[in-house]
Amino acid sequence: MTITITAFERSPDGGKGLARDTRVRWALEEVGQPYEVRLLSFGEMKTPDHLAIHPFGQIPTYEEGSLSLFETGSIVFHLAEQHAGLLPRDRDARARAITWMFAALNTVEPPILELTTARIFEADKPWSEERLPLVKDRVRARLDRLSAYLGGAEWLDDAFSAGDLLMVSVLLRLRMSGILDEYQNLAAYVGRGESRPAYARAFAAQFAINAPSSSSIIGS
Amino acid sequence: MTITITAFERSPDGGKGLARDTRVRWALEEVGQPYEVRLLSFGEMKTPDHLAIHPFGQIPTYEEGSLSLFETGSIVFHLAEQHAGLLPRDRDARARAITWMFAALNTVEPPILELTTARIFEADKPWSEERLPLVKDRVRARLDRLSAYLGGAEWLDDAFSAGDLLMVSVLLRLRMSGILDEYQNLAAYVGRGESRPAYARAFAAQFAINAPSSSSIIGS
Repeated sequence: MTITITAFERSPDGGKGLARDTRVRWALEEVGQPYEVRLLSFGEMKTPDHLAIHPFGQIPTYEEGSLSLFETGSIVFHLAEQHAGLLPRDRDARARAITWMFAALNTVEPPILELTTARIFEADKPWSEERLPLVKDRVRARLDRLSAYLGGAEWLDDAFSAGDLLMVSVLLRLRMSGILDEYQNLAAYVGRGESRPAYARAFAAQFAINAPSSSSIIGS
Repeated sequence: MTITITAFERSPDGGKGLARDTRVRWALEEVGQPYEVRLLSFGEMKTPDHLAIHPFGQIPTYEEGSLSLFETGSIVFHLAEQHAGLLPRDRDARARAITWMFAALNTVEPPILELTTARIFEADKPWSEERLPLVKDRVRARLDRLSAYLGGAEWLDDAFSAGDLLMVSVLLRLRMSGILDEYQNLAAYVGRGESRPAYARAFAAQFAINAPSSSSIIGS
């Protein structure tokens, strides 16, 4: 059954791999499933056709026969449940890996999203400079704990799982801020994620679409 | 096997049911599982003993024999997977319910958390009054879509599911702000959640611990 995902026609990050379709591409590569991509402009994301499969008018979505899903965490979980490679078989280990999926998205990502909002959408506000350190400290409060938990381990819970896939993806959003490099073990952890062949393929696939020079390369 | 969760010794919300243990209590009541509660002070949440089961030093946690979990979404999902009542059996409907769990926690809750932070932790900042409308509009951007999707339906996807349990819980955090009442169908949806006998039992159980007058009642 053909799997089709949606992605930005042109990601605002210019190919850094931070748009959420990269997380889904990575999961698809980890479980070895081929997929097709339907690219959407910002305008197309708010049309009734797209809102029918993504109520919040975003990307990515996931279509596979009669099933249509949105929400990255859910798509990654669906792939992890249907195919081997992203969740351990042992009942307790599986529940712990799922715990890390939710921790990435509901505990670690929210302050990181807030930092992104502060840096991008409130950069021109009179409070921007004074407020930014507060927001960064909220991110550090999470990373202090995450770093202490991870210690010298390779992954969050024994083998690489969907929990690591999402946690690495969330932490990647911090690289530009410099905060990730304050935590040597977390920076190395993210590096291990990026070194996985499946991540490299996912990154390359989105880069081919989003890189700033891709249209001029095609045109040259 | 005995299930033990943790909760605040005294919730900062004074018994409004907004602390996350209420979500877990609600799920336990929906699936008909008895549970015990271990109450923790703020100090106890940061001890090595508690950090060993919750790396971010928060509540709630979930212990059941050899299994120890944190992260509300994960605990609710574990209960939904192990017991009937919170996830449909049909494969596609189940995946959609899980999608709404993630949507509640990763798409709708982050701007609501940001509003809570702005109202509580930045209330004394010079930018507070000018910035608050921006933050509220980010919440409304999500609710506009959610309200349009829900329309006149009773629940997000046919029967009540863990997705509704988390979405109602997330939206409840907005009641004090008045924003929920701007969306008649969402306010009614939250009301339907609160009317469920399982929610009422969960609310009462946390209220008995957290209500402002509970110690004086005990003492009188």
